[in-house]
Amino acid sequence: MRSFLVAAVQVKSGPDKGDNLEKACTWVRAAASQGADLVALPEVFSWRGAPERSGSEAEPIPGRTTDLMSGLARELGIHLVAGSILEQGVPASPHDLPFNTTTLFGPDGSLLALYRKIHLFDVDLPGKVTVRESALRRAGDEVVTARTALGTIGLAVCYDLRFPELFRRLADAGAEIVVMPSAFTRTTGQAHWEPLVRARAIENQCFMVAPNQFGAGPHGFADYGNSLVVDPWGEVIARGPDDDAAVVSARLDAGVLERVRRELPSLRHRRLA
Amino acid sequence: MRSFLVAAVQVKSGPDKGDNLEKACTWVRAAASQGADLVALPEVFSWRGAPERSGSEAEPIPGRTTDLMSGLARELGIHLVAGSILEQGVPASPHDLPFNTTTLFGPDGSLLALYRKIHLFDVDLPGKVTVRESALRRAGDEVVTARTALGTIGLAVCYDLRFPELFRRLADAGAEIVVMPSAFTRTTGQAHWEPLVRARAIENQCFMVAPNQFGAGPHGFADYGNSLVVDPWGEVIARGPDDDAAVVSARLDAGVLERVRRELPSLRHRRLA
Repeated sequence: MRSFLVAAVQVKSGPDKGDNLEKACTWVRAAASQGADLVALPEVFSWRGAPERSGSEAEPIPGRTTDLMSGLARELGIHLVAGSILEQGVPASPHDLPFNTTTLFGPDGSLLALYRKIHLFDVDLPGKVTVRESALRRAGDEVVTARTALGTIGLAVCYDLRFPELFRRLADAGAEIVVMPSAFTRTTGQAHWEPLVRARAIENQCFMVAPNQFGAGPHGFADYGNSLVVDPWGEVIARGPDDDAAVVSARLDAGVLERVRRELPSLRHRRLA
Repeated sequence: MRSFLVAAVQVKSGPDKGDNLEKACTWVRAAASQGADLVALPEVFSWRGAPERSGSEAEPIPGRTTDLMSGLARELGIHLVAGSILEQGVPASPHDLPFNTTTLFGPDGSLLALYRKIHLFDVDLPGKVTVRESALRRAGDEVVTARTALGTIGLAVCYDLRFPELFRRLADAGAEIVVMPSAFTRTTGQAHWEPLVRARAIENQCFMVAPNQFGAGPHGFADYGNSLVVDPWGEVIARGPDDDAAVVSARLDAGVLERVRRELPSLRHRRLA
């Protein structure tokens, strides 16, 4: 990898797609104007609303949202992880649930990678968070990395964080930077977000870039904010606010990755599959 | 599992085995007198000295140290994780390096489980910590759990903490409590100990009991102390001091494990091997 400035964009998305996209573009432009070479948006950044509208708000890829993101990456000359969107199957079928899909665009606007969230969030914390993502969305099954001019980038989405085996697969594929768009809830975030994001960075000796949604949404519970950028030693090098929108940026130093992997070569000490 | 009091014993071991064993017995008795049903000692609790003496200080199992521990468990009527010792091969050969082995004894003094550290600590942090454990010890290759009257106990040792796949195997085997005797250094401990111990508890929804050595030893660097007991929600329910000996005890509540696994059933959401 090479050293560069990364920016995780922390926003609160709602049911008005036009408004969400406009705000996302504004924040991405702000990040690029600060010199960020890689900008990442959170999970479901383009639309988040009533579950029964999930199907009709889903889009094909390419489609409205990803066309806009591709153009933005090209215009600004950046790498852009376009958070996640609900992706309609092709051909669209009313019987198919959409995927929860993140995309990576290069500075020429080309689609470098597309990852469909593998682990869907089905929890029931009484009085706090009750979600059954698997009733609304389809799970992907492909582990995705992309070799880019910045380094090898791996992709994950939110609840995937709880599954270390996914990040091992990304490390096996050479990931130096893992970008993980999220909408991690406040309740689970307070208890689990930072230790898990740091653990993934430490055990896989990679940078973690984790843009998160914040604030109370129409879905009945709040998201945690606290977008994180963590280095391969596990140090938090940038953190978003608890409850506000922000560009959370940090310089990813390729020398830190090289030094950590040389001095404490735990990736080479693995003995179990 | 059932609810019970656990105690992690935090000590600093040196090159005098008789002295180490006497102190360990004193601390284990103290823990049992507080009502602990499971007591755990740290890695290399019985001897820690010049590398060139590793071979001659190694013992068979059964042998001096484990006989003492077996008797202590029986006398006190407790489950006892006898930290780790250097284990001589049987038959002993001058060409064989010893294993770094932890043992679990039941309240009748029987050996319930024996685990040989799989991942050996080879690092070179210039000016801080340089260790080449693999030059002095042999690695084990068997993942070990034991069904006991307290619950299913999994075993790991220190540097194993960096390898999430080991803890996945323990979870697969039904581990509800993982005991991990450690001598985790101060430098790496400050950066990695708490997030990794908490991550293992969170992602595997189990209790983690991690007795650690503390203080500067004859090996040229200091250990971190901060022995931890963490619940399946990732909460630190007991923590040892930075730089002192202690009995670090906490009640493990079986209801917490049941509730976490029911409300956020991530162990049932695994989709990758």
